[in-house]
Amino acid sequence: MTYELYYWPGVQGRGEFVRLALEDAGADYVDVARERGGEEALLAFLEREDLVHPPFAAPFLKDEDVVIGQTAAILLYLGDRLDLAPKDEGLRLWTHQIQLTIADLVGEAHDAHHPLGADLYYEDQKPEALRRARSFREERIPKFLDWFEAVLARNPQGNGHLVGDAATYVDLSLFQVVEGLLYAFPRTTTAALARAPCVAALHRAVARRPRIRAYLASHRRIAFNEQGIFRRYPELDG
Amino acid sequence: MTYELYYWPGVQGRGEFVRLALEDAGADYVDVARERGGEEALLAFLEREDLVHPPFAAPFLKDEDVVIGQTAAILLYLGDRLDLAPKDEGLRLWTHQIQLTIADLVGEAHDAHHPLGADLYYEDQKPEALRRARSFREERIPKFLDWFEAVLARNPQGNGHLVGDAATYVDLSLFQVVEGLLYAFPRTTTAALARAPCVAALHRAVARRPRIRAYLASHRRIAFNEQGIFRRYPELDG
Repeated sequence: MTYELYYWPGVQGRGEFVRLALEDAGADYVDVARERGGEEALLAFLEREDLVHPPFAAPFLKDEDVVIGQTAAILLYLGDRLDLAPKDEGLRLWTHQIQLTIADLVGEAHDAHHPLGADLYYEDQKPEALRRARSFREERIPKFLDWFEAVLARNPQGNGHLVGDAATYVDLSLFQVVEGLLYAFPRTTTAALARAPCVAALHRAVARRPRIRAYLASHRRIAFNEQGIFRRYPELDG
Repeated sequence: MTYELYYWPGVQGRGEFVRLALEDAGADYVDVARERGGEEALLAFLEREDLVHPPFAAPFLKDEDVVIGQTAAILLYLGDRLDLAPKDEGLRLWTHQIQLTIADLVGEAHDAHHPLGADLYYEDQKPEALRRARSFREERIPKFLDWFEAVLARNPQGNGHLVGDAATYVDLSLFQVVEGLLYAFPRTTTAALARAPCVAALHRAVARRPRIRAYLASHRRIAFNEQGIFRRYPELDG
């Protein structure tokens, strides 16, 4: 059984949260638009009129005849199957709630450089991005990192994981968000991490997980770039 | 057992999606900030340092010793308990996926009037809102409504519900989004609904559900206003 992941081939984007889970679990998967058929395959799938459960947008995952869109829903589905979610139902929902909060942060990180919408170039909304990025940098990044720090510090099973005493998909997702913020807002994020030592330690620990380390060093990991969610525009880092 | 809903008392906002589910089910609940303690009670709860699962933001729901944040996660939790979700696990995830897509639309509806962020007044970002609202109006509203229409039209159990052959929380949420869009963008939304007859019919059908009708006519339903997600600024409706 091979999972098929559909996502835009040139960026990490939201697809990366799914890739990290599949990679950490050593799952058998195909990154369809990169390995077969390109963007055309993805677009053709989105246009299909025979799907009873059509995805609204990429990423989406195909597992035999199951098709799932929405990053957080994909991870909710994969968490059980890849042994990257707790067994307890209450903790599974808590894990998902953390993922939804990460999704909010990801959306805000995107809007910091595209406040007027994804249909305009950054160059066409630069003054607006400068204004929006300021509150993202000064208010939002610290607020989110403080919350993750509190979640780690209060975990009854220890501060090495967001939930329970083993890695779950949200540990991997938090790694990815910190990695992205360090790329896009290095000055701001380094300062914020100094006040969030558990988050910083988890970020380092995930990078050392054998399969994640191998993945990050492979050609499968797309480099951060200025088409993705996390973009390095130094003027936005204050 | 009384559910406690925590949300800002002056607006429908994201809390309304939870209220509609509780109201439709005739559940026993308290709207804490409106009925007891005001915003102070909500803020005090968010500041609590003894919570192992702290919510990041409102709305959040308290059910005895369970505390859940994130609107979609709250509805995932309540769906089973209020008999507003399908029993089948695959369909439950599909229902949740639709809710997450509704959440994306809600976020974009907010950003149409606040592209530079929630920390500035509308009056301080009006030219930017005019630019952002244009693509929301011309591209995004039709794209989302077309997708909901396809979901309804393709439902093997009939086009009267988004999932299965009975009402689920996403039917209520779609009602709320259409209601909000009709308030904020009446011209655009009326035109889009003319091309989405199943969505329009579901919107009317939910409004006729006895408990929803009673709720909408009660003092418990806060009127739309210009502090919420859906705001009537005629200049943004094109």
